[in-house]
Amino acid sequence: MNNFTYYNPTKIEFGKEKENNIGSYLAEAGIKKVLFLYGTRSVKASGLYDKIINSLNKSKIEFVELSGVVSNPLLSKVNEGIELSKKHKIEAVLGIGGGSVADSAKAIAAGAKYDGDVWDFYINKAQITEALPVFTVMTLSATASEMNGNSVIINDDTKQKYSISSVLVNPVLSVINPELMQTVTPEYLAYSAVDVIAHSIEVYFTASVHPHFNSRIVESIIKTVMETTEILIANPDDYDARAEFAWTAIQALNGLTPAGTDGGSFPNHMIEHSLSALYNVAHGAGLAVVIPAWMKWYKEQNISQFQRFSKEIFNCDDANEGIEKLENWFSKIGAPVTLKELDIPRDAIEALAINANGLAKVWGMDTLYPVKTIVEILEKA
Amino acid sequence: MNNFTYYNPTKIEFGKEKENNIGSYLAEAGIKKVLFLYGTRSVKASGLYDKIINSLNKSKIEFVELSGVVSNPLLSKVNEGIELSKKHKIEAVLGIGGGSVADSAKAIAAGAKYDGDVWDFYINKAQITEALPVFTVMTLSATASEMNGNSVIINDDTKQKYSISSVLVNPVLSVINPELMQTVTPEYLAYSAVDVIAHSIEVYFTASVHPHFNSRIVESIIKTVMETTEILIANPDDYDARAEFAWTAIQALNGLTPAGTDGGSFPNHMIEHSLSALYNVAHGAGLAVVIPAWMKWYKEQNISQFQRFSKEIFNCDDANEGIEKLENWFSKIGAPVTLKELDIPRDAIEALAINANGLAKVWGMDTLYPVKTIVEILEKA
Repeated sequence: MNNFTYYNPTKIEFGKEKENNIGSYLAEAGIKKVLFLYGTRSVKASGLYDKIINSLNKSKIEFVELSGVVSNPLLSKVNEGIELSKKHKIEAVLGIGGGSVADSAKAIAAGAKYDGDVWDFYINKAQITEALPVFTVMTLSATASEMNGNSVIINDDTKQKYSISSVLVNPVLSVINPELMQTVTPEYLAYSAVDVIAHSIEVYFTASVHPHFNSRIVESIIKTVMETTEILIANPDDYDARAEFAWTAIQALNGLTPAGTDGGSFPNHMIEHSLSALYNVAHGAGLAVVIPAWMKWYKEQNISQFQRFSKEIFNCDDANEGIEKLENWFSKIGAPVTLKELDIPRDAIEALAINANGLAKVWGMDTLYPVKTIVEILEKA
Repeated sequence: MNNFTYYNPTKIEFGKEKENNIGSYLAEAGIKKVLFLYGTRSVKASGLYDKIINSLNKSKIEFVELSGVVSNPLLSKVNEGIELSKKHKIEAVLGIGGGSVADSAKAIAAGAKYDGDVWDFYINKAQITEALPVFTVMTLSATASEMNGNSVIINDDTKQKYSISSVLVNPVLSVINPELMQTVTPEYLAYSAVDVIAHSIEVYFTASVHPHFNSRIVESIIKTVMETTEILIANPDDYDARAEFAWTAIQALNGLTPAGTDGGSFPNHMIEHSLSALYNVAHGAGLAVVIPAWMKWYKEQNISQFQRFSKEIFNCDDANEGIEKLENWFSKIGAPVTLKELDIPRDAIEALAINANGLAKVWGMDTLYPVKTIVEILEKA
């Protein structure tokens, strides 16, 4: 077991109607003025927007609004938020939405306390030393951004999808009310499930130091996500399944699963990020395509863990059979498993590989894999 | 799934040699003067005492020493610590030892900021609103006190073993170096394993709302603790097993396993506390006696969960068989499973039941069980 530091100071307020307390949570933290950040129509259509405004007013929290965050969130929007925050002397960023909003809130929080270009943090040119406190009210569970210090942003100019990780942008408090997630489309539910599974298996398969306890936690997460996804496809109003899905999604990327491992790598995420960056593919959809291809290519490098996965998750002994069953399950819940389903032509593969390879450099590895290898993996998709 | 708040801001510094940084961890937190609290000889004999002193000196942290904390820690020692802290204007409490030291450190931290009698918190006469920051370096893993806000203290006058729980006394930072635990006796290793299993199963069996994910986490903890205990009995120097045991023990009582349940109750702990309070039995030893007896008495009230337990942990279908296998496993690792092995006579049972019943009242339940029921349970032991 490797040495590690575990520190996750995010407070989670989980359950029904908790979004109505957001004003008092902010007031308790001594906040008087927030940037109120959200996506588009859905927050207004669902009535959530009004609830938040009422709660802020009730606790006398001033706010400046910024909407228009999109999935695969853009640096240009982040820069708008930073400018507003500086101009209005904002004290905290309140993000209402899914992972994209939370990730953008973190970027704004860091950028508002920095004199240079916030993109410096993403390309590893500067380190975050200070940030505004971040609060979130989540409407989608997948990225675990509500309980970690990660933020993934796309630079609209350079088409790079890069990330940061700092406990300084961990949300101070996140509200998770599963009822707010009941309107998530079946498509996005499927993508979210794939994303959670992706977070779980990256270190599980790639770490060379991986204690049994970590494997057991990962398997618990995957089993629960698969089980609750199937329940929710049949009955989107099942509150308990929605709640268990939401809480499990958080555990997949809040620091618990890699603690004590040697960290492993995130090849599926890195390859997928090139798909989202170049083709604006939904992250979970891209992952559903990349994961089975990567597993087929990689399995021999850690065959015992692939056999364990097959046994624990699908009760079969053969590594190939486990991969096939996972791929079939992705299809069954409505996620794409081939590049063709994403309308990405075969002759785009090399450009994708070059983009993914560039990302690996920024993440501190010399190269993720050679371009040739990434091409080989994507050919399987 | 029930509503819940999850908040655990303790930073864990886990791994080899991390105790040598304790001075700099304190300095980074702005602390200049600590109460250095520990148990007895073993801390000096192992060389840990010198390492801590060197690290404190190196970071120019002043300290006032207090030793003599015993297992089943006493209120009289806590009061000594509070007096010293007030007199010397102590800024933080640094506890070096096992759960008893951590629990005492928390009591002192709360008492040092309170004008009344610290016992008020334990009998629910007052609520903690402020405390000195607590830091720990652990030499034994069992109670998870290193990552929670719980403190259990025995009042030497009244013979009550009562507890508090407040995030205000969560350690700010805990150092877990499994190497420091390699000298734990086989006897205490066994008691620790039982304690971790006890923390895991209380809510698992008694909650009426218990999501599958929680069951899976609990089962992951129990499997890992059993596996690593057996490895450590055979080879006490196995670092990885020691490390996995230590990290798993923390997960059993850091707030993760009950999140989203309806809380359940802690009958085994409450009954055991009367054994420790009246007979100074080691907590884990008392639990090993109480648990199988309680399980035999309780099983019909949640038979499906007992069947699940038997299947997951011992791969057998019958609830009774699972209980029997757990009892045998306790015996196998050297824990007592009868009151007789603890030298507690049959005619003491009623007094124990009355004491346990009194504790339940303080914990906010009218009664845990009627005295008659507790007698019935203990008769099975």
